[in-house]
Amino acid sequence: MKLYSSIGPNPRLVRMFAAEKGIQLEIVDVDIIGGENRQAGFLALNPSGTTPVLELGTGQVISETTAICEYLEEIFPCPPLIGTTVLQRAQTRMWLRRVDQAVVQPMTAGFRAAEGFELFKNRVRCYPQAADQLKLAAGEGLCWLDEQLGTQTFICGERLTVADLLLFCFLEFGAQVGQGLNSGRCGNLARWHAAMGSRVSALS
Amino acid sequence: MKLYSSIGPNPRLVRMFAAEKGIQLEIVDVDIIGGENRQAGFLALNPSGTTPVLELGTGQVISETTAICEYLEEIFPCPPLIGTTVLQRAQTRMWLRRVDQAVVQPMTAGFRAAEGFELFKNRVRCYPQAADQLKLAAGEGLCWLDEQLGTQTFICGERLTVADLLLFCFLEFGAQVGQGLNSGRCGNLARWHAAMGSRVSALS
Repeated sequence: MKLYSSIGPNPRLVRMFAAEKGIQLEIVDVDIIGGENRQAGFLALNPSGTTPVLELGTGQVISETTAICEYLEEIFPCPPLIGTTVLQRAQTRMWLRRVDQAVVQPMTAGFRAAEGFELFKNRVRCYPQAADQLKLAAGEGLCWLDEQLGTQTFICGERLTVADLLLFCFLEFGAQVGQGLNSGRCGNLARWHAAMGSRVSALS
Repeated sequence: MKLYSSIGPNPRLVRMFAAEKGIQLEIVDVDIIGGENRQAGFLALNPSGTTPVLELGTGQVISETTAICEYLEEIFPCPPLIGTTVLQRAQTRMWLRRVDQAVVQPMTAGFRAAEGFELFKNRVRCYPQAADQLKLAAGEGLCWLDEQLGTQTFICGERLTVADLLLFCFLEFGAQVGQGLNSGRCGNLARWHAAMGSRVSALS
């Protein structure tokens, strides 16, 4: 399997997911700074123009990180990162969406509205008028997640899941673009982040 | 199983999903206009304060429509609305996310930024500064989906999936809040929408 990858938190999430499972993927680097993902060759693979994209041995392609991670989980169930029971999978998907809505969506939109505006303004619709509000929302989402995490080891309790990987990759991204974690206010997440950062997969 | 439901496209999606499968759910109506979902009783069920929420016979709860639909698909696989093969499921999840990103996210944020502002301003962060841009993005997302649909029967080709149900529920919602489909520009979606609207499940 071939992973069309690039800089950015979404491709990193899939690489980290694969690393946790010991899956070897052939990596094809896509130059998103240069706009390679918005040109005809790449758009034929993924009409959304986003990375990552997984190309199967059959030539079929899957884009969108959630779909790719679910696919990899079905093909390589061990170690589980979504779950081994229907209830575990439901709880993982619920938390994955909560992390997405509370943090990933406003953080990404806040970045594109400000620091990332020059890069993205001709690619996707950006909201510079709401840049500060979007970043505030992402920060509030982190505080809410901090309360939800409490003293648990992982977002879903004692199980490492794709929800942890998603939040980790976006926290690391946020730290690079002026939306770092407020460790003083979010002590639970700071502890969790340190533990996540010590995993071998974090090198992905 | 008990579904905490309300007005709005997300609870409707789960009701429509259940109707397509012939699943009977006990419906508990939540008064979201009156803010029942932001009070302690409901927040104990779902700390995100969103509807719908599925309560299992064991008392465990699942929120977030994607997680609820995936759960119902696993428990009641027929007729499939996500897929019967790993590749079908991957393609459905990919398109579900594309519909979410291209239409659902900007349409919802556009609504909360304008027509829905008074209702939402003290509940979630809204972006009135970007209202027009958010609505434009949702309209552009619909045009993009129209091209992708082409002459296909459903979003994933000849299979009805949860991606169709998601888009249908949000198109109907959009039509009620000033973000209706431009049928002249989006003829493929207009045809698809008429066919979806004639399904018995559309009465959900």
